[in-house]
Amino acid sequence: MKTIRVGIIGAGRIGKIHADNLLRLPHVQVVEVSDLFAGPELEVWAAERGIKQITTDSNGIMENPDIDAVFICSSTDTHVPLIIQAAAAGKHIFCEKPISMNITQTQKALQAVEAAGVKLQIGFNRRFDHNFKRVYEIVQNGTIGDPHLIKITSRDPNPPHEDYIKVSGGIFKDMMIHDFDMARFVSGSEIEEVYAHGSVLIDPVFTTHGDLDTAIATLRFKNGAIGVIDNSRQSVYGYDQRVEVFGLKGSVGITNDHPNTAEISTVDGIMRDKPLNFFLERYNEAYIEETKLFIECILNDQHVPVDGNDGFQAELTALAAGLSVKLNRPVKLAEALELSIQQSMKA
Amino acid sequence: MKTIRVGIIGAGRIGKIHADNLLRLPHVQVVEVSDLFAGPELEVWAAERGIKQITTDSNGIMENPDIDAVFICSSTDTHVPLIIQAAAAGKHIFCEKPISMNITQTQKALQAVEAAGVKLQIGFNRRFDHNFKRVYEIVQNGTIGDPHLIKITSRDPNPPHEDYIKVSGGIFKDMMIHDFDMARFVSGSEIEEVYAHGSVLIDPVFTTHGDLDTAIATLRFKNGAIGVIDNSRQSVYGYDQRVEVFGLKGSVGITNDHPNTAEISTVDGIMRDKPLNFFLERYNEAYIEETKLFIECILNDQHVPVDGNDGFQAELTALAAGLSVKLNRPVKLAEALELSIQQSMKA
Amino acid sequence: MKTIRVGIIGAGRIGKIHADNLLRLPHVQVVEVSDLFAGPELEVWAAERGIKQITTDSNGIMENPDIDAVFICSSTDTHVPLIIQAAAAGKHIFCEKPISMNITQTQKALQAVEAAGVKLQIGFNRRFDHNFKRVYEIVQNGTIGDPHLIKITSRDPNPPHEDYIKVSGGIFKDMMIHDFDMARFVSGSEIEEVYAHGSVLIDPVFTTHGDLDTAIATLRFKNGAIGVIDNSRQSVYGYDQRVEVFGLKGSVGITNDHPNTAEISTVDGIMRDKPLNFFLERYNEAYIEETKLFIECILNDQHVPVDGNDGFQAELTALAAGLSVKLNRPVKLAEALELSIQQSMKA
Amino acid sequence: MKTIRVGIIGAGRIGKIHADNLLRLPHVQVVEVSDLFAGPELEVWAAERGIKQITTDSNGIMENPDIDAVFICSSTDTHVPLIIQAAAAGKHIFCEKPISMNITQTQKALQAVEAAGVKLQIGFNRRFDHNFKRVYEIVQNGTIGDPHLIKITSRDPNPPHEDYIKVSGGIFKDMMIHDFDMARFVSGSEIEEVYAHGSVLIDPVFTTHGDLDTAIATLRFKNGAIGVIDNSRQSVYGYDQRVEVFGLKGSVGITNDHPNTAEISTVDGIMRDKPLNFFLERYNEAYIEETKLFIECILNDQHVPVDGNDGFQAELTALAAGLSVKLNRPVKLAEALELSIQQSMKA
Repeated sequence: MKTIRVGIIGAGRIGKIHADNLLRLPHVQVVEVSDLFAGPELEVWAAERGIKQITTDSNGIMENPDIDAVFICSSTDTHVPLIIQAAAAGKHIFCEKPISMNITQTQKALQAVEAAGVKLQIGFNRRFDHNFKRVYEIVQNGTIGDPHLIKITSRDPNPPHEDYIKVSGGIFKDMMIHDFDMARFVSGSEIEEVYAHGSVLIDPVFTTHGDLDTAIATLRFKNGAIGVIDNSRQSVYGYDQRVEVFGLKGSVGITNDHPNTAEISTVDGIMRDKPLNFFLERYNEAYIEETKLFIECILNDQHVPVDGNDGFQAELTALAAGLSVKLNRPVKLAEALELSIQQSMKA
Repeated sequence: MKTIRVGIIGAGRIGKIHADNLLRLPHVQVVEVSDLFAGPELEVWAAERGIKQITTDSNGIMENPDIDAVFICSSTDTHVPLIIQAAAAGKHIFCEKPISMNITQTQKALQAVEAAGVKLQIGFNRRFDHNFKRVYEIVQNGTIGDPHLIKITSRDPNPPHEDYIKVSGGIFKDMMIHDFDMARFVSGSEIEEVYAHGSVLIDPVFTTHGDLDTAIATLRFKNGAIGVIDNSRQSVYGYDQRVEVFGLKGSVGITNDHPNTAEISTVDGIMRDKPLNFFLERYNEAYIEETKLFIECILNDQHVPVDGNDGFQAELTALAAGLSVKLNRPVKLAEALELSIQQSMKA
Repeated sequence: MKTIRVGIIGAGRIGKIHADNLLRLPHVQVVEVSDLFAGPELEVWAAERGIKQITTDSNGIMENPDIDAVFICSSTDTHVPLIIQAAAAGKHIFCEKPISMNITQTQKALQAVEAAGVKLQIGFNRRFDHNFKRVYEIVQNGTIGDPHLIKITSRDPNPPHEDYIKVSGGIFKDMMIHDFDMARFVSGSEIEEVYAHGSVLIDPVFTTHGDLDTAIATLRFKNGAIGVIDNSRQSVYGYDQRVEVFGLKGSVGITNDHPNTAEISTVDGIMRDKPLNFFLERYNEAYIEETKLFIECILNDQHVPVDGNDGFQAELTALAAGLSVKLNRPVKLAEALELSIQQSMKA
Repeated sequence: MKTIRVGIIGAGRIGKIHADNLLRLPHVQVVEVSDLFAGPELEVWAAERGIKQITTDSNGIMENPDIDAVFICSSTDTHVPLIIQAAAAGKHIFCEKPISMNITQTQKALQAVEAAGVKLQIGFNRRFDHNFKRVYEIVQNGTIGDPHLIKITSRDPNPPHEDYIKVSGGIFKDMMIHDFDMARFVSGSEIEEVYAHGSVLIDPVFTTHGDLDTAIATLRFKNGAIGVIDNSRQSVYGYDQRVEVFGLKGSVGITNDHPNTAEISTVDGIMRDKPLNFFLERYNEAYIEETKLFIECILNDQHVPVDGNDGFQAELTALAAGLSVKLNRPVKLAEALELSIQQSMKA
C-alpha cells in the first residue's frame, strides 16, 4: 500500500492537531508545513515530530509533485484560492469549515474541485463523534422511524475574543454552521427553509459587531420534518452539545460527555462534575477519525464522508439564517442562493 | 374556619377528578354537580361520594345562595357565559383551560370577573407539578441567572379521536396552550412575538380538519429571552413533558417521570421502563395541588396562583401562533389581538 | 360484596397511617381504635375521620363480634399475646414487623394463627413499593436468569432517639430485618447462612446499648446465590434504599426516588435534589397497597402476600446475624433456631 | 532532561500495550524487548515501532548497562526472580500484578528492591482510571467525611479460558486482587480482616480447578470502616466496574463507562448501549497514565504511585480471602501471613 504524502497549510491550533493525528497513522507522511507566521517556535514543534520542511509560503506545497494531499487550515479568506490552486495541482484536499464567507465563491471552489477530479473533505468533525455517530446510525437503521422533529443544542463554554468576533462571519456562519450540518446528517434530509432570531444577552461586544450571542433557528426539511437549533456563546457549566431526533417509532437523544461518572451525595444534594469543557478535549477522537477516514478514502479511492456539497449546504443555510434575522421572516434556501447570485453578478 | 361549598358544572373526566380531589380537602363541601348528560351512572358515582344534588341544569348551582364557588368543567363553548353568570352571582370560579376559543369573548369574561370582584383560577395544572414547580423555583431564586433560552417539549402518547380533533381548536389552542403558559411561568416574562410552523406527519386526519400533528413555535420574550416549544400528537414511548431554562449563570432542565427507577442490563443493552403514559397519572398530584390552592385562596382571601390574565395570555399566544402558520411569518401578540378586535367589531 | 370491619390496636404513627389508608378503601369500616395512651388528641383525630370507638383497652376490639380483622400496631412486646388472642377470637390479623424479639415466641404465635385458620399478614411494606416490586417481577419473569448476587443498600436518614435504640432489638432485628425479607423476596430463595459484622462510627450511644450503627451482612441462599446487605443509621443525603440482583442473563437494579427530576447545571457542577428523606414519604404508596391487598385477600379468601412464615424467616435471619457478630463467624439459620429452642427449653 | 531507556520482558498483550504507551512518551526509549516465544511476528511488530533489539532471553536486558528500567510483563512465576535480578542490576522496575503467588516469595522480592534502592511500581492500573481517581480525590478532600462503608463491584464480561483458570491462582489472587487494592486506595486505610465466600454458578469448569466464579468478600479496615466486594466471572451486559464510598458526610459512587450517551426511546422502553466491554478499551487511558507516572517518578526521583507494599497488601488480602473460604470464617491478614511464614519455614 502506498504512502500518502501530506502538506499542511496553516499551523495554528487546528493545523497542529491534524498534523499530530496524521503522524499517528500508518501510510502517511507529513512532508511540509507552511504558515505565514512560521518562526523558531514552529521549527521546534516540527523537529520534535520529524517534519522537515517548514515554510511561510504555501506555494512550495502546491508545487511539490511529491505531495498527494493538502490540509487547508489557514484563515477562511484563503480557502477558496487555495482549493482552486490545489485542485489545479491535482492534490486531494481537506479543508476546514467554512469553505468561504461567500456562497458564490464556495461554488467556484467546488467547480474547480469537480473539474480536477480530486477529493475534497470538509472539516465537520462532529459527524465522527461517538455520540452523534450513534444518533445517525439509529436513525438510519429505522429504529425510530421517519424523523419528525430534530432538536440540536450547541453552546460554547466561553465567548470568543473580540478580535475573532470581528472576522468570524457571525454566529450562523461561525458557530451554527456545525449544527446545520448536523441537522442534515442526522435527519437524512435537505433543509428547505429556515427562520432564525436571536439576542445579545451575554456581552454587548456582539452588538458592536452586528452579531448575536444567543440564537434559535427553526428548520423545515424537504421530507416534511421540522427542526430547531439553539446556540449560546457562553455556557458556564461547560461545552453543551446535544441532539435529539424524534420520529414515528421513537426517539434518540444524546447528552454530554463528562470527565468521569462520579456522583457525589451530600447534605447539599447530588452532584456530578461538569461536562468536558473544551472542544479539543470533547472532539479529540472525532478529529482523529475524520483524518483517518480522509486518508483511507484516498488510499481506496472512495468518496469522502463529508464532501464539498455538505460544506455548501451548511453555508447556504447559514446565509439564509442571517437573511432571516435581517428580514424577520422565514427564508427558503433557494431564495437566499438566488439573491446571492444576483448580488454577485451585479458586483 | 368556614367551609367552602362548591358546585361542579360538567362531570366528565376532569370534573370528576376535581370532585374527588375536593372531597379529600378539609373545609370543602361538594354541594351539587350538574351535567347535561347526568343519568343513573352519575347518580351512582355521586352516591358513593355522598354528593346529594345531581342535575342536568347548571342554573341550580348558579342560583343556589349556599354555593361559594363553581368549577367550570363543561365544554369550552360554555365557559364564557358560565363565567359571566357565576361572576354576576358572586361566586368564585375555577375554570378549565382555555377560557374560550375567541380572545374578545375571553376579554368579556374577564371584565365580568373583575367587575364582580370574585376570584377566577384557570386550570393550568402543570404549574403545580413537582418538576415544573422546581424549575420555576430555581429560576426565581436566581441560581441560573437571567433566562436566555427557554425550551419546552410536550408530546402526547396518542393522538385524540377525530371527534375531538374537529372541535379542539387546533394544536395551538388545544395542546400548545399549556406550553405557552409554561413558557411565561418559568421565564418570568411576557411573550411578545411568536413564529410557528408544523407538519402533518402522523395521521392525515389532521389535514382533513385543517390541523397539524407536529409543530414548533419559537418565542421572543419581553425581557429579550428567546424560546422554543415542540409538540407532537404521538410519542410512542409515552407522555413526554420536559422543560429547560438556560441562563447567564447556568441551566435547569427536567426529564420525565417514570413508574419506577429499575434499570435492566442484559446482553441487548441497558433498559428502563417508559415514562408515565397518561396525563392523569402524570399530573395526579398537580390536580390535587391546584384544587387545594384555589380553596386556600378563597379561605384566606388571597390572589389565585393562575389568574384570568394567565388564561388570556396563553390564549393570545395560541391565536398568534395560528396566525403565524397562516401568514408564514412571525406575529406579535399585540398584532394578533388588534386583528381579533377588528374582526369582532366587524361581526 | 361484604364490608370488612376493622379494629386498630395502637394509634401511633404507623397505626394512624393504616387507619387513613383503610378509610379510603371501599368495603372497609374502621370500627374501633385502641391505644394505651388514648386521650383528647386522639379523640379529635378520630372524630375528624368518623371513627366512633376510641379506647385504652384492646380487649374491647378482641371481644367485639362485629370486628373481622385487627391491625396490631402496638409495641413489639405486645404482638405475640395479641396475635394469640385475635386468632382465638377468629379475627384476621395484620401485624407490624417484627412479630417478636424471640423466635420461639414467634413460633407460638404462628401456631395459634394456623390452628385458628385466620389470615396473618406481616407489615413488610417495601414489597409493595413500585421499585422493589419491579425488581421482583423482572427476576420472576426470567429476564436476568438465575440470580447469582443479591445486593441491598438500606440507610436511614437519621439515627433513632436513644429511647428507641434501647428497646429496638438492635440493628439486625429493627432495621436489617426489612432487608432480610427483601433478600428472600427478590431472590426467590431461602437464606441458609449469614455472616454479619459492623461498627459504631456515627454515635457512641449505640455502643452504650450494645448496638451497631453501621453493618454488613453476607448471605448464602439455598439455591447457591450469594448476597450482601449494608446498613447505616445515618445517610446525610437522605433515605437510601437500593437493591440489585445480578444473574446469569443480566442484572436489575433500582436507584432512589427523588422529589423531582430537575438537573441544575452551574459553574459548580451538575446538581440534583436529594432523594426523598422520610420513610413515610418514600413508602406512602406501598403502605396504601399493602393495606388494600390485605383487605382483598380477606374479601376473596386468598393467601396473603406476606405471611407469618415470611415474618419468621426474616426474624430468624436477624437472630443468626446477631449471633454471627457475637461469634465472629458465619451462622446457619438452622443452628440459630436450634440454639434458641434449647435456650427456651432451659428457661 | 535525560532519556529513560527501557527494556520490556514479556511481549504478550500487556507487554505490547506498555511498549506502545512508552513509545508515545517524550524522554523514553524502548531499547530491547525479550519474549520466550519471540519470532517473525514480533520482529514485524518491533520493526513498525523502530524497536531494534528483540530476543528470547531476558538476560540481555538485565546485563545491558544502557537500560535504566525494566517492565516485567512475563508470566507470574517469573516475576520474583526477575525482580531480584533487575534490582541487583540497579534497574528500576515496573511489574505486573501479582508479584507472586506466594507471599513469602513476594517479601523476598521486596527485600531485594529495598536493598538495591531501585524503584518498583506494581501494575494496579485502575488507580489511574478517571472514575476511580475521582472517588479517591473526593474521599481525600474530605467531601464525604470519614469513610464508613466501601462497596466494590467487579464483574468480567467473559470467563477466562480453562488453560488460564488452571494457572490463574483462583478468583481472589487473579481477579479480586484488583479490588483489594482499590479498597485500600479509596478507603485510605489498611485491611485488617476478610471474610469471603462464593459459588460456582456459571461454569462447572471452575469447580474442576478448585476455583469459584462468583464471590463476595467483606472487609474490616483498621480505621473501623467496613467493606464488601463482589466478583463475577461473567457479566453478559459487559465489563462492570463500580465503587461506592459512604461516609459520615456523604457518599461518592461511580457507574460504568459507556461507548456513547445515546438514549433510545421506543414502544419497548428506554434503552442505552451496554458499558464498554473489554478491559483494554475501558482502561486504555489508565494504562497510559500509569506508564507516564512511572517514567516521571524515575526522571524526578519521586516515590512511585503504587509501590511494592501495595502489591504485598493486596496479595496478602487475597491469601486471607482464600483461607477464609477454606475455613469458612473471617481471617485476619496477620494470621494469614503468620501461617504462610510457618509453612515456608517448614518447606
